[in-house]
Amino acid sequence: MSTISSYDKLVISEQPITIRGWVFKIMSKGKMTFLHIRSGALKSQKIQVFVHSKVCQSSEFTTESYVEITGKVTQLPTGKYSYYPFEVIASSVKVLSKAKSDFSSRYPDTASIEYKMEDRHMHIREPKMSLMIKLRDAVIQSLVKYFYSVGMTQVFPPSFVSQESEGGASLFKLQHPGTSGEIQAYLTQSSQFYLEYALPAVGDCFCIAPSFRAEKSHTRRHLTEFLHAECEWKDVDSLETHIDKLKHMMKGIVHLLLEDHSILLEEAEILERVKDLYQLTQDILILSHDEAIRKCTVLGIYKDDEHKIPFDERDDIPESQERKLIDTLGKIVFLTSFPVETKSFYMEVLPYDKSRVAGVDIEVPLVGEVVGSGIRCGDVDELVTRLKLQGMSDLDIQRDYKEYLDLRRYGFGRTSGMGLGVDRFLTWITGSYHIREVVTFPRYAGYIRP
Amino acid sequence: MSTISSYDKLVISEQPITIRGWVFKIMSKGKMTFLHIRSGALKSQKIQVFVHSKVCQSSEFTTESYVEITGKVTQLPTGKYSYYPFEVIASSVKVLSKAKSDFSSRYPDTASIEYKMEDRHMHIREPKMSLMIKLRDAVIQSLVKYFYSVGMTQVFPPSFVSQESEGGASLFKLQHPGTSGEIQAYLTQSSQFYLEYALPAVGDCFCIAPSFRAEKSHTRRHLTEFLHAECEWKDVDSLETHIDKLKHMMKGIVHLLLEDHSILLEEAEILERVKDLYQLTQDILILSHDEAIRKCTVLGIYKDDEHKIPFDERDDIPESQERKLIDTLGKIVFLTSFPVETKSFYMEVLPYDKSRVAGVDIEVPLVGEVVGSGIRCGDVDELVTRLKLQGMSDLDIQRDYKEYLDLRRYGFGRTSGMGLGVDRFLTWITGSYHIREVVTFPRYAGYIRP
Repeated sequence: MSTISSYDKLVISEQPITIRGWVFKIMSKGKMTFLHIRSGALKSQKIQVFVHSKVCQSSEFTTESYVEITGKVTQLPTGKYSYYPFEVIASSVKVLSKAKSDFSSRYPDTASIEYKMEDRHMHIREPKMSLMIKLRDAVIQSLVKYFYSVGMTQVFPPSFVSQESEGGASLFKLQHPGTSGEIQAYLTQSSQFYLEYALPAVGDCFCIAPSFRAEKSHTRRHLTEFLHAECEWKDVDSLETHIDKLKHMMKGIVHLLLEDHSILLEEAEILERVKDLYQLTQDILILSHDEAIRKCTVLGIYKDDEHKIPFDERDDIPESQERKLIDTLGKIVFLTSFPVETKSFYMEVLPYDKSRVAGVDIEVPLVGEVVGSGIRCGDVDELVTRLKLQGMSDLDIQRDYKEYLDLRRYGFGRTSGMGLGVDRFLTWITGSYHIREVVTFPRYAGYIRP
Repeated sequence: MSTISSYDKLVISEQPITIRGWVFKIMSKGKMTFLHIRSGALKSQKIQVFVHSKVCQSSEFTTESYVEITGKVTQLPTGKYSYYPFEVIASSVKVLSKAKSDFSSRYPDTASIEYKMEDRHMHIREPKMSLMIKLRDAVIQSLVKYFYSVGMTQVFPPSFVSQESEGGASLFKLQHPGTSGEIQAYLTQSSQFYLEYALPAVGDCFCIAPSFRAEKSHTRRHLTEFLHAECEWKDVDSLETHIDKLKHMMKGIVHLLLEDHSILLEEAEILERVKDLYQLTQDILILSHDEAIRKCTVLGIYKDDEHKIPFDERDDIPESQERKLIDTLGKIVFLTSFPVETKSFYMEVLPYDKSRVAGVDIEVPLVGEVVGSGIRCGDVDELVTRLKLQGMSDLDIQRDYKEYLDLRRYGFGRTSGMGLGVDRFLTWITGSYHIREVVTFPRYAGYIRP
């Protein structure tokens, strides 16, 4: 007799079946015990099992024990409800691995979310958390399927890099074996450069890889390690073309999620939410930086809230004010055309305003920035000038950016690209409050346990 | 007029079309220039373009320039051959990004492979290397598709860990932000423990993530960062069940590669090879460690070749002798039943010989070990005893393995698992000699440039 591991495959029958799983809940009434058994499959991942004391004493059961049950699948009596319209009547029970009896006291209903979150390896067994693991998987599947659907090649970038790409304060440093002794290495903050290197070889390309930032802050949005989905497109000749690609992507990913994973979304009770988000992807607001500044002024969002000081035209809008703006607008917002001094050296300036760059940040309500993107500058001299403005010497540039500049020296494919924070994106999709709820094994200041 | 980026879509027609790409080769004869243009699409990724000097002077062209060509797709004259049976007759040419003229001298035909490999960002533009990026993508797609096909959930493990899982010599250490000051962190060497943590929540699961080893050696098999495909199965009650899962996996992955990517394999001229490998997956040799030792003795493979000293019954067979054995056998070999003292503390012992463990290494000709695997030990006391044999104190064990031991305290799902080195696997699939040929951006002692 084979063991059935997905309870979705169970059917009411006189033929006995065997299932295995973890005891999630135990309810005893005299000689009757009802167990809820979890297999890891979907449908709330649990099935009800009825065990009479003749078959097994209720004292044999502890929460989280791994058990093997043989019995018949039987229709539930009228008026009774469980995960399925049926339950298993056990004819034999084997406790394959008996759990310590303290699990319930370790996780009393009163345990704080902070306590549970930092006992991660046990916490993820809760239905909400295990569903989140499956939602994360589903979102990644939709991302990957989208990128393939537009003809991209997946590229696998390295984690070790020799130079900083985004600034040094939050860079992880470590020693890497050299040819003799050791050399200084960093952990990557973005794989953008590597996608740019790969593009002339394979055309449009993407990657999904961890990025690292030594964030000391303890906010609900920051991690020291996050999953980064990045891609690079060639032949992007204007900001409009770039915006079209981003719109197509946002719509495409959410569409695939709905198309391929609606059962999971329903189970997680977010199907209606994701349908609403799909509507949002069809009504995106494009807002240039100067329009955003004006909207802030109109809406009473200040640079300095205490002294009611409004933003100047070329100010960078900090994260908290930006979020306030987006939450008020209640739409997916593409922020564009940033002052050149507020963005990275590799962003192309606008043809009609050289003091602003063709960058687009995608902002979503309640979460904030989920995508950073832009058209790449193709001019070696301009790139060098802008690196020097950041205080780099010719020697620094030659050491750290020689290969990057080679991309412009040897046939620049007029590219643009984007980086999507998968964890923030998932926070948005699921309507979660804290990023740590959506990451299976989060890493942040002070936390590197399971 | 839209730009066609995949040359596979070109058809012979009187309607002019526009293509863009990189100039890969330039051949001039008087007023005639033939260009080979590369787009990153398949079919050797190149198309031939004919340019008369009236349209554009040959001096305008440099290797690796990015160009836009408008013209008609025309059948090649009888007796002429190119990548396609047609070429483009240019009616206009725009050099969008003119490459520096030194590319050909930078990459003379005489340049050594070592030189090219360490100028990686340019080297990957060569047809063989760019095909390898696509083959890597294809192998990953087949792996992922296989894991989903057997009902697994994809899990995303962290790179930062707080403890060693495989021994400390080759562990990368770094400082991670703490709640105040910094804490010691390591880069993961395997995600096995995290898959084991996730399994009771989601059932069978897998991951594809980088693993890190601070390897100082400069061999053709070692990297400091490698892509690791790992998975974990529940309900594995015997070595036979575990071996069946591994056999099914090896056959399944190669089958999917053939089924989904035969055009790419043909283009890379390895279709026949992969068909042969598929045959090998149906004729796997299972060899217990003691049988392997006896085979070594018979075949004259010695522990000490100089002094002709044969292996003792419980010796660990070092890598080079192991490879010699596998190459001689010429088959996929599952090495099993290793002496307990040669393997990790978490491997289950055999029910019929407690001095040997239910581990299986998958070895393939010319590459060696591509998979390490085994049944997990479910007994807390035995795990603690074996950790103590390694010299760990109760305090060390409590600090480093508390959560791992919790997995056995709270319902052990009788699991086994495996880790497949994607880079070595790809070396085997493609019949490459050096692992650095198959990794797009390899990392090894002394090399962390692009």
